[in-house]
Amino acid sequence: MIAINEHYNKLQASYLFSDIAKRVSRYQQDNPVKAIIKLGIGDVTKPLPPVCIEAFHKGVDEMAVEEGFRGYGPEQGYDFLREAIAANDFKARGAAISADEIFVSDGAKCDSGNFQELFSSDIVIAIPDPVYPVYLDTNVMAGRTGSFSDGRYQGVVYLESTRENNFVPSLPKEKVDLIYLCFPNNPTGSTISKEELKIWVDYARDNKALILFDAAYEAFVKDESLPKSIYEIEGAEEVAVEFRSFSKNGGFTGTRCAYTVVPKACLAYTGDGTAQPLHGLWNRRHCTKFNGVSYPVQRAAEALYSQEGRQQCEDLVNYYMKNAELIRSAMTELGYSCVGGDNSPYIWIEGKMDSWKFFDLLLDKAGVVCTPGAGFGKCGEGYIRLSAFNSFENVSLAMELVKSSLT
Amino acid sequence: MIAINEHYNKLQASYLFSDIAKRVSRYQQDNPVKAIIKLGIGDVTKPLPPVCIEAFHKGVDEMAVEEGFRGYGPEQGYDFLREAIAANDFKARGAAISADEIFVSDGAKCDSGNFQELFSSDIVIAIPDPVYPVYLDTNVMAGRTGSFSDGRYQGVVYLESTRENNFVPSLPKEKVDLIYLCFPNNPTGSTISKEELKIWVDYARDNKALILFDAAYEAFVKDESLPKSIYEIEGAEEVAVEFRSFSKNGGFTGTRCAYTVVPKACLAYTGDGTAQPLHGLWNRRHCTKFNGVSYPVQRAAEALYSQEGRQQCEDLVNYYMKNAELIRSAMTELGYSCVGGDNSPYIWIEGKMDSWKFFDLLLDKAGVVCTPGAGFGKCGEGYIRLSAFNSFENVSLAMELVKSSLT
Repeated sequence: MIAINEHYNKLQASYLFSDIAKRVSRYQQDNPVKAIIKLGIGDVTKPLPPVCIEAFHKGVDEMAVEEGFRGYGPEQGYDFLREAIAANDFKARGAAISADEIFVSDGAKCDSGNFQELFSSDIVIAIPDPVYPVYLDTNVMAGRTGSFSDGRYQGVVYLESTRENNFVPSLPKEKVDLIYLCFPNNPTGSTISKEELKIWVDYARDNKALILFDAAYEAFVKDESLPKSIYEIEGAEEVAVEFRSFSKNGGFTGTRCAYTVVPKACLAYTGDGTAQPLHGLWNRRHCTKFNGVSYPVQRAAEALYSQEGRQQCEDLVNYYMKNAELIRSAMTELGYSCVGGDNSPYIWIEGKMDSWKFFDLLLDKAGVVCTPGAGFGKCGEGYIRLSAFNSFENVSLAMELVKSSLT
Repeated sequence: MIAINEHYNKLQASYLFSDIAKRVSRYQQDNPVKAIIKLGIGDVTKPLPPVCIEAFHKGVDEMAVEEGFRGYGPEQGYDFLREAIAANDFKARGAAISADEIFVSDGAKCDSGNFQELFSSDIVIAIPDPVYPVYLDTNVMAGRTGSFSDGRYQGVVYLESTRENNFVPSLPKEKVDLIYLCFPNNPTGSTISKEELKIWVDYARDNKALILFDAAYEAFVKDESLPKSIYEIEGAEEVAVEFRSFSKNGGFTGTRCAYTVVPKACLAYTGDGTAQPLHGLWNRRHCTKFNGVSYPVQRAAEALYSQEGRQQCEDLVNYYMKNAELIRSAMTELGYSCVGGDNSPYIWIEGKMDSWKFFDLLLDKAGVVCTPGAGFGKCGEGYIRLSAFNSFENVSLAMELVKSSLT
């Protein structure tokens, strides 16, 4: 008999986005002439930067002729891209990451979901609350949790992000082995200082723990004192893996390219305490279960690192950040307490009411769609997330509608 | 302490391709003026079909403008591609597969590696020998095998493909739960008849087992009596998942697009025997750990199904099949017993000597690189694999060199 992995049946069906869709569609039926502005989803709306388009076309043209055609590429990505990443994203910021420590992939979601495969099923995992659900769900699937009760999976150490800790979790009381951190944070938009991040790196070094650091939103960091990479913290290369993405800085959500950094100094351990480099383990996983990113896509990603490309990314990020500032200032003016939106594209807003009630209020009164915070975990209750990913015109109109309907 | 998944340490380091590279490089040093012709690797060499290039460019152009831009697409693939697949690859051959049973992905390697995640760790797996190593390695990583000894992993039921069974394995004596089959076969190039495949489908239905059917090479099937899809066999939709790829028919090895078919009727079971559809489980896995294929790549794949596209794929396949015929007839003429090359791009050749000895002979005498069969498993010993993926000119020259050096 072909028996299923019953851990899948512990997963809570995510009704979040289907619930949102249902409520939006009901509103649309009741108000057929009213426009709806969606600020719920973290998906970019602006076209790919011109340098990308040019490089993408060039890559496709190479695939059209015998001399330029490329078959299977290196699973880890082409050197031209890995070297551009190492030089621009790390060496330029004083982080000694080399090209062969970078694994190019088709998405940070995939990598942050797959990385847990390298570890024993009985490690203790620490996961933020609120959280991007992939970290949690992939560990549930792998059998690292008990069942779900009272809004939480048993066996998981939840790192609570609340107003009290300024949405940067404190070290857990329990001893943990694998720690997920995401800064700038999705969904809260909060950031972490170098000093705060050093506390986590030191904890990992002292306890032989590992940090999986999701830096998918690093491009939105404007405050130069904040780290963009965990490798700006001394010793992090021994205890941290970092996930990066071209989705938000280059608008690659539908184009698909990302990368994961696994420093050669980063260690994990066998049961008898023997240290083993993670680099070789991840390389084995990557080569066995992945076959590289589309060649023209890698060329398009490489173009983001040219002088023009860097400028075009910055323009793109600035465009969304103007939206973020507008949202944050409008909501603050209305008396709501906000976090994020200054160094991140998300604004996390305390509604002083139930998340879904706040959702309904914004939809019914203003025709604006947000994401209810409760969808990201227990600590998200009472909050909503607004996203800066839309046109400036739509965001301006949304804020006008919110202002006039809530005052 | 962050403890690793120690099953990874059971994996045998694959020295196959690095061993080949070392021997080739030594030969090149010793014979600096001699040309080397590589017929070892299963990677295409011809450019993408013109219809693909055109659609690919069009897709990129859409990403350049606000009106055409696409962010996150459906994880399962765009309907335009799923519908083209269902209509052309299945309905046209009498197999009732619908668009929503198709999951578009970035590679059949990834899917055939990932699919085992859906199952309990204590199922019994049946894996061919010789075999494409991904099926085996991903089960080793998941802890479904014991350690490696005497050329085999403990706990795996090996399905031997030998001259005696015409390279189509017989039903195992032991009861098995998950069965990997690949036809046309990599590495042997053998095919399976509908009658032979029905024996496996019936076995799975009788024993509540599941077949993972890798049909990545179906485009090379010329004999109309042979199945291209397992769904041409009655009842297969209840017990089989099929992997397909655009790598070989459309030359997509470096472009990356494939798909997996999970029929809604296909079942697996919880420990207490309750049936559960695999479709929902795979959908959950796919949406949690994957984020869809690049939009322009999906447009390029769709173009393969246009009238022109189908013709261009056929031309591409015919080009390689002319090579395959040439290799097969040349080696047969030289007195070697061959399988494959008629409905597959691989020719499996019995050397009547050690695999590596045959490898060295072809390299030293003719400057031709093959793959030693022993690299694919115990039953591969004594064989080599030659691949039809090269230019006709190179293949012709290689066969001339082999003929003149071995006679």
